[in-house]
Amino acid sequence: MKLLVCCVFVVLACQSTLADWVRQPFWYDDARRDKVAKGTVWPQPKSIQTSTQSLSLNPDSFSFTTTANSATSDACKDVLDPALERYRALLFWIPADARVSVSGDSVVGSLRVSITGTCTKYPSLDSDESYSLEVPSSGEATLSAQTAWGALRGLETFSQLVYEVDGKHKLNVTTINDEPRFPHRGVMLDTARHFLPVPYIKQNLDAMSYNKINVFHWHIVDDQSFPFQSKTYPDLSGKGAYTQDNVYSPEDVQSVVEYARLRGIRVIPEFDSPGHMQSWGQGHPELLTSCSPTSIQQDIYHLGPANVARNSTYDFMQRLFQEIREVFADDYFHLGGDEVHFQCWMSNDEIQQFMRQQGFQNTTEGFAQLEGYYIQRLINVLNGFPTRTRGIVWQEIFDNNILSGDFTIDLDTIIHVWQWNNSNFQGIQYWDELPLVTAAGYKAILSSCWYLNFISYGRDWPEYYACDPHNFTGTAQQKQLVIGGEAPLWAEWVDATNVVARLWPRASAAAERLWSPQTLTDATAASPRMEEHRCRMVRRGIRAQPQGPSYCKYEWNLAGESNYVPTASGALGMMGYIQQLLLFCCLVLTFGFW
Amino acid sequence: MKLLVCCVFVVLACQSTLADWVRQPFWYDDARRDKVAKGTVWPQPKSIQTSTQSLSLNPDSFSFTTTANSATSDACKDVLDPALERYRALLFWIPADARVSVSGDSVVGSLRVSITGTCTKYPSLDSDESYSLEVPSSGEATLSAQTAWGALRGLETFSQLVYEVDGKHKLNVTTINDEPRFPHRGVMLDTARHFLPVPYIKQNLDAMSYNKINVFHWHIVDDQSFPFQSKTYPDLSGKGAYTQDNVYSPEDVQSVVEYARLRGIRVIPEFDSPGHMQSWGQGHPELLTSCSPTSIQQDIYHLGPANVARNSTYDFMQRLFQEIREVFADDYFHLGGDEVHFQCWMSNDEIQQFMRQQGFQNTTEGFAQLEGYYIQRLINVLNGFPTRTRGIVWQEIFDNNILSGDFTIDLDTIIHVWQWNNSNFQGIQYWDELPLVTAAGYKAILSSCWYLNFISYGRDWPEYYACDPHNFTGTAQQKQLVIGGEAPLWAEWVDATNVVARLWPRASAAAERLWSPQTLTDATAASPRMEEHRCRMVRRGIRAQPQGPSYCKYEWNLAGESNYVPTASGALGMMGYIQQLLLFCCLVLTFGFW
Repeated sequence: MKLLVCCVFVVLACQSTLADWVRQPFWYDDARRDKVAKGTVWPQPKSIQTSTQSLSLNPDSFSFTTTANSATSDACKDVLDPALERYRALLFWIPADARVSVSGDSVVGSLRVSITGTCTKYPSLDSDESYSLEVPSSGEATLSAQTAWGALRGLETFSQLVYEVDGKHKLNVTTINDEPRFPHRGVMLDTARHFLPVPYIKQNLDAMSYNKINVFHWHIVDDQSFPFQSKTYPDLSGKGAYTQDNVYSPEDVQSVVEYARLRGIRVIPEFDSPGHMQSWGQGHPELLTSCSPTSIQQDIYHLGPANVARNSTYDFMQRLFQEIREVFADDYFHLGGDEVHFQCWMSNDEIQQFMRQQGFQNTTEGFAQLEGYYIQRLINVLNGFPTRTRGIVWQEIFDNNILSGDFTIDLDTIIHVWQWNNSNFQGIQYWDELPLVTAAGYKAILSSCWYLNFISYGRDWPEYYACDPHNFTGTAQQKQLVIGGEAPLWAEWVDATNVVARLWPRASAAAERLWSPQTLTDATAASPRMEEHRCRMVRRGIRAQPQGPSYCKYEWNLAGESNYVPTASGALGMMGYIQQLLLFCCLVLTFGFW
Repeated sequence: MKLLVCCVFVVLACQSTLADWVRQPFWYDDARRDKVAKGTVWPQPKSIQTSTQSLSLNPDSFSFTTTANSATSDACKDVLDPALERYRALLFWIPADARVSVSGDSVVGSLRVSITGTCTKYPSLDSDESYSLEVPSSGEATLSAQTAWGALRGLETFSQLVYEVDGKHKLNVTTINDEPRFPHRGVMLDTARHFLPVPYIKQNLDAMSYNKINVFHWHIVDDQSFPFQSKTYPDLSGKGAYTQDNVYSPEDVQSVVEYARLRGIRVIPEFDSPGHMQSWGQGHPELLTSCSPTSIQQDIYHLGPANVARNSTYDFMQRLFQEIREVFADDYFHLGGDEVHFQCWMSNDEIQQFMRQQGFQNTTEGFAQLEGYYIQRLINVLNGFPTRTRGIVWQEIFDNNILSGDFTIDLDTIIHVWQWNNSNFQGIQYWDELPLVTAAGYKAILSSCWYLNFISYGRDWPEYYACDPHNFTGTAQQKQLVIGGEAPLWAEWVDATNVVARLWPRASAAAERLWSPQTLTDATAASPRMEEHRCRMVRRGIRAQPQGPSYCKYEWNLAGESNYVPTASGALGMMGYIQQLLLFCCLVLTFGFW
């Protein structure tokens, strides 16, 4: 017996020992290995030439100037001016008492911003985000873009070129020509499984702008709660929200949309239907289908998906969507359409009668057709708005079209591909779905491989980095129809306590995939840049989690959300500064009077 | 082809539909299901009788009183008085403007605290933490304990009995007799893979006290960095820390130990050796074994585990440990001893020669004996201190004893069982290890099933809840030798950005297992209490992550770490209060003078 135990131990000892042997002596170095990047840009620009010649920035004299072209027009200044203010704060993070004089150094005296096209109030799918940035050895840096949105991207890049050496803000002589690979680069937040206070949404918008993400897909309501406060139908949140503190007023939404706009981020609302509507049914049970109890369905609610047989449902949606369209400014509206379970419809006489009227069979194909009918009527609602509005739908709507053979859905609808084959869900692989969607002529966005709510032990961002929306067999025209992707963070296990750390920097991997050239695929090579980027986000007040044993010069601390650089993000810590200002004034007044 | 695609879709649709069907209509309710617990206690007391008769607390008149016995002795007051201050703040969280008058209600006017035994300055493994708590309908509540440590546990319980109804602080008539099942209930934090600023350590000590955890195992240094600032050997952190901002000064450590003491928490330092010492080698390469390059070992450091052949190594450790013993006040010292790789020792002539002198074979058994020899010499060092100090070692030290057949290690050493069989590591199961350890007469603590650094999707606390340190075959005497457990949070993927959310409330599951009766095993029944406990922690400023779709009355928000109740934890937000006070004074002075 004792011998047996000994043998087991010997075997186990040898097993674990050999594997770790080669690695062990590097652990001290490993933890510092990625700390070599200085002034690198994330996501990587399309074209960048960097010299080793470094210049200094003088926080006291550096200036942004604008060329007297579009950049000085009201439409451009509206976005550009607040951005210059934000980036001025982001540029100089070294605490005043730790700064070293740059006198005698070659300096970058100014950045001249030029906008050559016209500026729109809101960013859109068609916005030109290209820019070129020149930091010459003369020190007169220039940033040129077609639009204010491009200028925002260029300012972000410029701010990332700056690095810290011995108390000085430095950057290297650099030439950049940049534009995104995909026009739709999104992050999806779910505020229904858990409510997310507005300051957290804004903080994530800051982080998105640091990653050149230009779409905030707001999955605002779902089965679990309805936090959107509708003026037209107050009972939706009045009865469907978790609590009356857990709601977004129209002013809240408007402030989020404005905050996003100033960062070149579109806010696309999702009001998911006809499934995922239990919370709607709390205030408006008439919207939902009454299911007849069956052997597998005996619960007390008896309410299933939207009652798609009643005109009143469409009238309700028309009035609600009209209100939503006015608050959210984007041309696109996400209609949802995922995970509808047909059994409740099957069990309901009203639905059955309606289907017979419409000539739909009482089969899975028929119900697929029914859902397609419903969604197309909602798309018609969108089309009827004074400002043309188009729909985005989850892939089931397209799959239903295939199933029923009835391609009812307008071709200018975007299909949002999300299913995949893993242990949590058995679906079709995205590289099998995208060829079908694009062959049918639809635009597509991909989320399947970027479900950031799924977590696992260790360094997982390289997985997200490896995924490519063009990873399918199809023609150039088909590839062209894939307009981008989104990283969704479903919120079953996420709320304000952990949302930022869970999202960042994991979403950054998707951000680079969606912005940078397709050829950039080496996660190991990207690792030092990722490390610098994560520490930069931490320094800027984004609680981005670590990606392996290491450290940041500016570690996260406890005073406020971060005790380092004030972000220029407006909502964060503003009260603190006002308070300090007041305190200072009071002290002056008080002691002045004595 | 089209038919094939259709078939695939039908099959997939049916697959996912049926499984979700029964569940779907409950989602709205599911998110609210656990919100039924009010004034429940976590961890569950040994014995609790609660009536439905509820009393109110009046924040303006409620008082703590102390019986004129030990509770009024200096030794007890030292711990009790600051605790009463903390719990006064924790008791009344409803914002003043939202409070409703309790006049006319039956009220709990006071809690009289009585301590019948003697108080020690520091908690220890032998401390009596029992208490009894009586909230009678008369409203004169009493708490009686043997020691201040028991009184702390009782105060925590009392504070958890309080719940909120319509603007009032309420609690029910209750009788509790309580004591822990295990005397050693710990959380391990690793400050070497990432540095953790002191305020975060203190915040976790707060959270530990809310969970009646009484041991903070501080894995302070490791291969990656050496943040402990030694006066004797300043080069250890001077060259081994990540940066000179990322260090714990003796004053830092002392403030942590004091903060913990006041919460009845022991701080056990771990200075892991002879492996895991790369960072030590930066400042003191002479401590480590020079490995000869071999085919599988060609790196530049050539430094392996401690050089156990040199007396100078033991002298170094003696002087360092002496300093550590003086800063950390606990009777126990964790010597580490895990994951030592013998190949470097094998390759070193000095070690080989020493082994021949000692009569150790040049075999795995011989090296196991060598490590045992080394650790026992360190234990002798501990034993030689003016205040008797005992060792805790990771299980390899015991396994080596088995392997070599040479049970060198003192019997009063505690064996820390951590290995387990999973995909990350192939080790022996704890229920096979604990019988061996306890049969040999050693005390044991268990960590194998509570590695909170490993994460997975979804609700994982029931797994931790299910694990029991007595889950092995052994005599009553053997069971008695298992003195508790610890939940370790190794910090490869954890720093200040995510440590609190990752640890809580997952560690709470282990906390209840280690405190409450063994018979309490139903995680589903515990779920509403867990939900209340997690929201209570959030309300108190602990960033505990959600455990499924739901909400808290006091959601986490962004102003500071939480914009709700001031915790009485000292370090949190104190500057804010001072600032507000100053501001108020200034305003009064300013406008007073006008």
